[in-house]
Amino acid sequence: MCGIIGIVGTTEVASALYDGLTVLQHRGQDAAGIATVDGARLRLHKDNGLVRDVFTQAAMSRLRGRIGLGHCRYPTAGSEGSSESQPFYVNSPYGIAFAHNGNLVNTETLRREMFEDDRRHINTDSDSEVLLNVLAHELQIQDRMALTPDHIFKAVAGVHARARGGYACLALLLGYGLLAFRDPNGIRPLVLGERITAEGREYAVTSESVALDILGFKRLRDVAPGEAVFITNDGQLHTRMCAEGAVHAPCIFEYVYLARPDSMIENVSVYKARLRMGQKLAEKILRERPDHGIDAVIPIPDTARTAASALAEALGVPFREGFVKNRYIGRTFIMPGQGERVKSVRRKLNPVELEFRRKNVLLVDDSIVRGTTSRQIIQMARDAGARNVYFASAAPPVRYPNVYGIDMPAASELVAAGHTNKEVEKMLGADWLIYQDLQDLIWAVQDGNENLKHFDTSCFSGEYITGLDQHYLQQIEMLRSDDAKAARRSA
Amino acid sequence: MCGIIGIVGTTEVASALYDGLTVLQHRGQDAAGIATVDGARLRLHKDNGLVRDVFTQAAMSRLRGRIGLGHCRYPTAGSEGSSESQPFYVNSPYGIAFAHNGNLVNTETLRREMFEDDRRHINTDSDSEVLLNVLAHELQIQDRMALTPDHIFKAVAGVHARARGGYACLALLLGYGLLAFRDPNGIRPLVLGERITAEGREYAVTSESVALDILGFKRLRDVAPGEAVFITNDGQLHTRMCAEGAVHAPCIFEYVYLARPDSMIENVSVYKARLRMGQKLAEKILRERPDHGIDAVIPIPDTARTAASALAEALGVPFREGFVKNRYIGRTFIMPGQGERVKSVRRKLNPVELEFRRKNVLLVDDSIVRGTTSRQIIQMARDAGARNVYFASAAPPVRYPNVYGIDMPAASELVAAGHTNKEVEKMLGADWLIYQDLQDLIWAVQDGNENLKHFDTSCFSGEYITGLDQHYLQQIEMLRSDDAKAARRSA
Amino acid sequence: MCGIIGIVGTTEVASALYDGLTVLQHRGQDAAGIATVDGARLRLHKDNGLVRDVFTQAAMSRLRGRIGLGHCRYPTAGSEGSSESQPFYVNSPYGIAFAHNGNLVNTETLRREMFEDDRRHINTDSDSEVLLNVLAHELQIQDRMALTPDHIFKAVAGVHARARGGYACLALLLGYGLLAFRDPNGIRPLVLGERITAEGREYAVTSESVALDILGFKRLRDVAPGEAVFITNDGQLHTRMCAEGAVHAPCIFEYVYLARPDSMIENVSVYKARLRMGQKLAEKILRERPDHGIDAVIPIPDTARTAASALAEALGVPFREGFVKNRYIGRTFIMPGQGERVKSVRRKLNPVELEFRRKNVLLVDDSIVRGTTSRQIIQMARDAGARNVYFASAAPPVRYPNVYGIDMPAASELVAAGHTNKEVEKMLGADWLIYQDLQDLIWAVQDGNENLKHFDTSCFSGEYITGLDQHYLQQIEMLRSDDAKAARRSA
Amino acid sequence: MCGIIGIVGTTEVASALYDGLTVLQHRGQDAAGIATVDGARLRLHKDNGLVRDVFTQAAMSRLRGRIGLGHCRYPTAGSEGSSESQPFYVNSPYGIAFAHNGNLVNTETLRREMFEDDRRHINTDSDSEVLLNVLAHELQIQDRMALTPDHIFKAVAGVHARARGGYACLALLLGYGLLAFRDPNGIRPLVLGERITAEGREYAVTSESVALDILGFKRLRDVAPGEAVFITNDGQLHTRMCAEGAVHAPCIFEYVYLARPDSMIENVSVYKARLRMGQKLAEKILRERPDHGIDAVIPIPDTARTAASALAEALGVPFREGFVKNRYIGRTFIMPGQGERVKSVRRKLNPVELEFRRKNVLLVDDSIVRGTTSRQIIQMARDAGARNVYFASAAPPVRYPNVYGIDMPAASELVAAGHTNKEVEKMLGADWLIYQDLQDLIWAVQDGNENLKHFDTSCFSGEYITGLDQHYLQQIEMLRSDDAKAARRSA
Repeated sequence: MCGIIGIVGTTEVASALYDGLTVLQHRGQDAAGIATVDGARLRLHKDNGLVRDVFTQAAMSRLRGRIGLGHCRYPTAGSEGSSESQPFYVNSPYGIAFAHNGNLVNTETLRREMFEDDRRHINTDSDSEVLLNVLAHELQIQDRMALTPDHIFKAVAGVHARARGGYACLALLLGYGLLAFRDPNGIRPLVLGERITAEGREYAVTSESVALDILGFKRLRDVAPGEAVFITNDGQLHTRMCAEGAVHAPCIFEYVYLARPDSMIENVSVYKARLRMGQKLAEKILRERPDHGIDAVIPIPDTARTAASALAEALGVPFREGFVKNRYIGRTFIMPGQGERVKSVRRKLNPVELEFRRKNVLLVDDSIVRGTTSRQIIQMARDAGARNVYFASAAPPVRYPNVYGIDMPAASELVAAGHTNKEVEKMLGADWLIYQDLQDLIWAVQDGNENLKHFDTSCFSGEYITGLDQHYLQQIEMLRSDDAKAARRSA
Repeated sequence: MCGIIGIVGTTEVASALYDGLTVLQHRGQDAAGIATVDGARLRLHKDNGLVRDVFTQAAMSRLRGRIGLGHCRYPTAGSEGSSESQPFYVNSPYGIAFAHNGNLVNTETLRREMFEDDRRHINTDSDSEVLLNVLAHELQIQDRMALTPDHIFKAVAGVHARARGGYACLALLLGYGLLAFRDPNGIRPLVLGERITAEGREYAVTSESVALDILGFKRLRDVAPGEAVFITNDGQLHTRMCAEGAVHAPCIFEYVYLARPDSMIENVSVYKARLRMGQKLAEKILRERPDHGIDAVIPIPDTARTAASALAEALGVPFREGFVKNRYIGRTFIMPGQGERVKSVRRKLNPVELEFRRKNVLLVDDSIVRGTTSRQIIQMARDAGARNVYFASAAPPVRYPNVYGIDMPAASELVAAGHTNKEVEKMLGADWLIYQDLQDLIWAVQDGNENLKHFDTSCFSGEYITGLDQHYLQQIEMLRSDDAKAARRSA
Repeated sequence: MCGIIGIVGTTEVASALYDGLTVLQHRGQDAAGIATVDGARLRLHKDNGLVRDVFTQAAMSRLRGRIGLGHCRYPTAGSEGSSESQPFYVNSPYGIAFAHNGNLVNTETLRREMFEDDRRHINTDSDSEVLLNVLAHELQIQDRMALTPDHIFKAVAGVHARARGGYACLALLLGYGLLAFRDPNGIRPLVLGERITAEGREYAVTSESVALDILGFKRLRDVAPGEAVFITNDGQLHTRMCAEGAVHAPCIFEYVYLARPDSMIENVSVYKARLRMGQKLAEKILRERPDHGIDAVIPIPDTARTAASALAEALGVPFREGFVKNRYIGRTFIMPGQGERVKSVRRKLNPVELEFRRKNVLLVDDSIVRGTTSRQIIQMARDAGARNVYFASAAPPVRYPNVYGIDMPAASELVAAGHTNKEVEKMLGADWLIYQDLQDLIWAVQDGNENLKHFDTSCFSGEYITGLDQHYLQQIEMLRSDDAKAARRSA
Repeated sequence: MCGIIGIVGTTEVASALYDGLTVLQHRGQDAAGIATVDGARLRLHKDNGLVRDVFTQAAMSRLRGRIGLGHCRYPTAGSEGSSESQPFYVNSPYGIAFAHNGNLVNTETLRREMFEDDRRHINTDSDSEVLLNVLAHELQIQDRMALTPDHIFKAVAGVHARARGGYACLALLLGYGLLAFRDPNGIRPLVLGERITAEGREYAVTSESVALDILGFKRLRDVAPGEAVFITNDGQLHTRMCAEGAVHAPCIFEYVYLARPDSMIENVSVYKARLRMGQKLAEKILRERPDHGIDAVIPIPDTARTAASALAEALGVPFREGFVKNRYIGRTFIMPGQGERVKSVRRKLNPVELEFRRKNVLLVDDSIVRGTTSRQIIQMARDAGARNVYFASAAPPVRYPNVYGIDMPAASELVAAGHTNKEVEKMLGADWLIYQDLQDLIWAVQDGNENLKHFDTSCFSGEYITGLDQHYLQQIEMLRSDDAKAARRSA
């Protein structure tokens, strides 16, 4: 999971990119980077860590220029290393800085082709570096000293022809401008905005509209699936559809969990979609257990709060903030000879006991992935004196890995994979477990924009819009298991 | 504002202190420190910054010992300097490490006496260093090679006789144990807990019960006003009342804003007190504007959420999370030649527009201090399309400075100081402004523990339980004004 | 001035590169970097600072691989920036890491061609990045999926055809091996060594033989002017002359000042060459002032010590260490309101007074560049009580800038530029000033290897072996003046 | 081994202390610290590391004040820890900052008394903290609100009565001035200087006169054994003898190795003393081997250079710099799987081969302690082709530990302890080993100041001027062995 933002401005742009990254950081807190164009120079600063830690005053003061892009990252398969933060840069041709959000499903093939056919060395495991080099190669074979938008769009079409997966991309072409494009299925989001200043018109392209909001940009529209947007150094906007005919299938997990509630994605308010998820869930509860006897609806903060409040309202049951989230989580220090350790979830959440004591509580979470946290939370509710602990998931059971850029564990670590809801209920220790139905989830989003006919719902349905190579899921399984991650980290 | 925690454990204690500080950090994110007793050595690490940044693995591994204390700080008058983080240490007599939460109103007198009468040099502006030296002096004049609890309690009585203000204190006496004591009026909170482990009984003393919760300690009781608690190295608990006869007057602002909702203070649930604040406010609204026409109750996150949800319930009006808080605020970088800047509040809060459009909204905050943020938020609500913007404060007008350890600006910077509610309403740009009544606020807390007869309500009432020296408020005014702070920071 | 070292080893190579850089660091203390080939990955770490500070344990542990190269740098024209430390890297074609010692005189032309003809973006002012991209381009136009030594040597020949200046270069070609080559005139030094280990034969190529010595490599021979050496990943050595017919003209300043005395360059012992400089200077002194009356010969430590000891011996005058060098120079802090400052040279050198009192002393330095230090030292000798202060330079007057990689000030800042020796004597305040004659200096080196017929003596003679563009020296003048440097640093 | 400097100036003093520490740093590169008096505040900054690394611009800018002291440290027994760098500070009485050079032989007794009798906690293993608390206690029992020089000198006399060992001390008494005193035997050096500035007279007290030289202070005289010097805040100088009757016995090892050659200690030029050591050694060589057949005298740089040059001159044999010292030693990195490592001495010294090939060389070192380095150097000389390798030590055999502040290994690790010179010769692998005689060493120093009747020569003679407790040497043995140090470092 990543957040990206690019701006072609009229004045210095680094602090706006910085502010933008701070509101995109729910998409990735692992690493951050900014690249700007300072005359004939590319300025680049990136590192592991939070945005506020990565960008010191000294670093910011070197990021001169009125055109730039920023990136924040949550580690996806294979990218834990510190040298793999974005943006990436190649100097040939032209000088290109690149950042993207998403994941390719044919990285290995591209990587091999890239070296064998194009003699381009890929020095990391990051598929961003692969994508950048595909783009670089497609630009190189245009074989033009002076690029025109037409050549650039041809190169993007070339990228679409080779890359498979979900990807929303930003590239600085030195001497030319800012290029933005989105995968043909429009899996990952990308939105275009503009701002009129005294010095002229400015454009921004970013993962979520909330970044436009806080920078005072007006949201113009989503970048269309397969479309490319090119904004020249002097602020001219060019757009072209570079991959026709693909099914538009935005990732539904953005609405469930990833996006901020105050964002608009595909003209659908994330906030409203979550309210509708709560309503639909309430309807299902009333259908299945008209005499539910629930005393309080309690969200697992923060994401589930919106759906839970609508659910409570629809049930006519009090909505209560029964868990207090600790905002200042620190590391876990292992001290030799230390006593019993606090359960890790307890360090993040603390129950307000009197909201639980002798009550039938319905805990609401946005989704259930591994189930480990849910199990601990249910136990905490019980320890706090709850009579019955019900658990609702605003999303259907997560049974399959996500391969388009949402960080999820290997299938073998998904609590619902290969299990019935009843089995999961038991594994979590809930007195009752209720999942959203997939068609209800789809409705909750679709109701905001009836033009959306399809979604990427692969982690619920196992259907992958791009198709997958035969052994791809097995590879993912190996890469994403906890053991694999631990091994890479210690390497 | 500060948070403190001390533990006499049976095994290594540093990581528990660390975990405790992370849940106390809402009381102070400016600096943090931990001291432990490692055999005959005091181990001490402190620095400016968040708990997770101050304590590296290297620092933690040096904090050996099964007895220790921790502190996190929000800067109060005069303490911005980096050398002034706590705990403080003096080596004579015995070796004492000390941390406290609160503020003295006779610091200057004590500082002078300390040097002139006791030849103790105070090297910082911190009143903690003053308090530590008062304690050190009182212990020194016991003139005993081997301290007994009796001598220690006599020394605490001596401190109470000299110090005036609100203070909850922890002290490690090397070779003896952990001492905790609270000012005679019990202004600042302090709570005692215990945990039974395989190795034996452990005690913890801390600012808020939430720290006990997450460490698995059972809350025993609040330390009483004027009481001292001494836990010996081998885990024996001694307690004594060291200042009789004073009025018990806990700080009511802990319930309004400072404390976490899941804490119990003076046997009152902060969460429940806030629910009652919401109810009382609803009653007042219904009294004053039976036809209020409010479409949605929208809290200013995070503190006001509890009161607002009860208020909404009592009004029978939907409760809506209309503002999304950005969890990843960064610094504000000023770049030469940059364009228009985002309003600072916009970097922290973003409105979900459709919760405002064409609605009559009631925004609820816990209190109104300077009014600057409230004014910007009201404007944001209007910009988002609200028809009418009403504003409710769960606390009465703040008109006087707090001198007992709550960080507040100088009186001249309080929007309500010297103004009628109507004037404030206009200054904030609200269509209607409604404040909680003081007696309602008192009732909301008192209803949880009828033994509480008095509170420190000075910032609402101007009545200071300890009495104040004639020119004290003027000095405070000078120290706390923004100009004064800026001058100190640049020094 | 820079030092370089590359090794194709049989086991991990990073610590050997590190050790090698520590003995090359007299050639550049400003920045350091190491690149290694770790399977299919390039590992790279570089930063401003001393070798011991740049390479932390964490950085070293990432520099895995048995093939690698290292670089240490003294800033030459335009390279003060921190992002400009070496090695540099491009990923296309093949992946190449590159480091060099030297300076080009046609950088600007190459930089322009590189972008306009080859669409390669140069992101720094470093001529190393330019050279790397020339090499990359020459390799790319070989248009081969699998490189052979033959193609590599053709590419080097292509570099020689385009680049003008003094350069000794090392390049890692990922998947192939280590390439080393030297400019056609052999201006900058480069030496080849081997080591037989239990695991097999290893090769090293480096600026000075002293790095071979301390790593236990046997010096095989200097890389010839215009020659390229390619050592494959599996340790096969290939060599070829890639630029015939040029005059061999090694930089004579290496012998005067830059190289360590224990190095062999072009089969000449630097130490012995310096002894001969001392002898020649003694002969000149005896010729010019048979009754010199010198009581003691005192070297300016450290470089001049060798020549001075031979000079003293030849004169039959005691050799005395009259100046003690401070090994721990720190920064100069300017404190507001501070008192009188120590003269800067006094912080580096302190006279042993009794070696000066009432004596006629002959101070010996390796050369005189700006003259500022010499003037202060002469004054210090006088203040210490010397009767007469004579000053000898083991090199002739420095009157012209060096353009092949020796850091020297602009011509306008050379004390001898445009002045007679008598005028310089007066400007330095010496009672007598004596310079080495150029033919004597040449003899002193040549006597160690009669095959050396020519030298680059440009800073003494103004003759530039490569020829220079018309305005080149003017540009250098502008770049290297103190004002220009100060401006760049503050940028 | 440590260096100290204190200044009572007329303007800001921090940068002068910094410059002073840089020229004292040969006495200790392990840690550094500066304390200044800024109005009523003590400013203190100290850390492990070189002076230039410890003092950043930010740290320096906080060290305001015109009175201060500085310290640099080489770790002696038990002081490797980072928290143990000096100056130390206690706030009672008055506020005292303290730094010293030397070592006590009754630390344990004092430490015990300090806690049991005086209730002062010592938190480190440093005997500086002990000495500071002895001084603090002696000042405290003067029981005076306003200190006079008389009371201060009484307190120093009290320190002398309790402390045994070698110590040169500096203390800042807040509100009063700078106190300097030296142990009754005058084992460790301390010298007083003055400087007249436009603002008035300034005083400095420091370990070596070289620090006065570079700061432009005039050397007035050594502080006498047992004498105390007190310079008031307003620059008044008071002195008094506080311990009469003790034998004056300066440490002779200062002349052999520790001090810089350009320092004057006890009115003896260290440089001249070393020349005389060389002459005496030459006389002994000529006595013992009139037909020595030595072709070259080669010093082990840097300390031995002075004695070796006089030795060569007296023998009439060429003096040759056969070893080049590497100024940029880095850490030793252990890489998994790496090949053969360079011998550690080879990383520091490299032979100029032609000075050894087929020659009889006499290597000269200042002294031989463990013998490990000497053995490796002799082997290097042999490997470089020397026919015979003779080895001379400018000092007698080191057979006993130093307990007065010179860092030396445990007796069991001294190569000469319990061995005849012939045995040592064999252990080192020398063809001939020759030691200075003790009476010759004494003469070499004494010849510069005939008033010096005694010296501390304990490491040669085993005679300890202060007397030692029965088991003291055994404790030292345990503390200083390599195993013990390794254990402490890993703790």
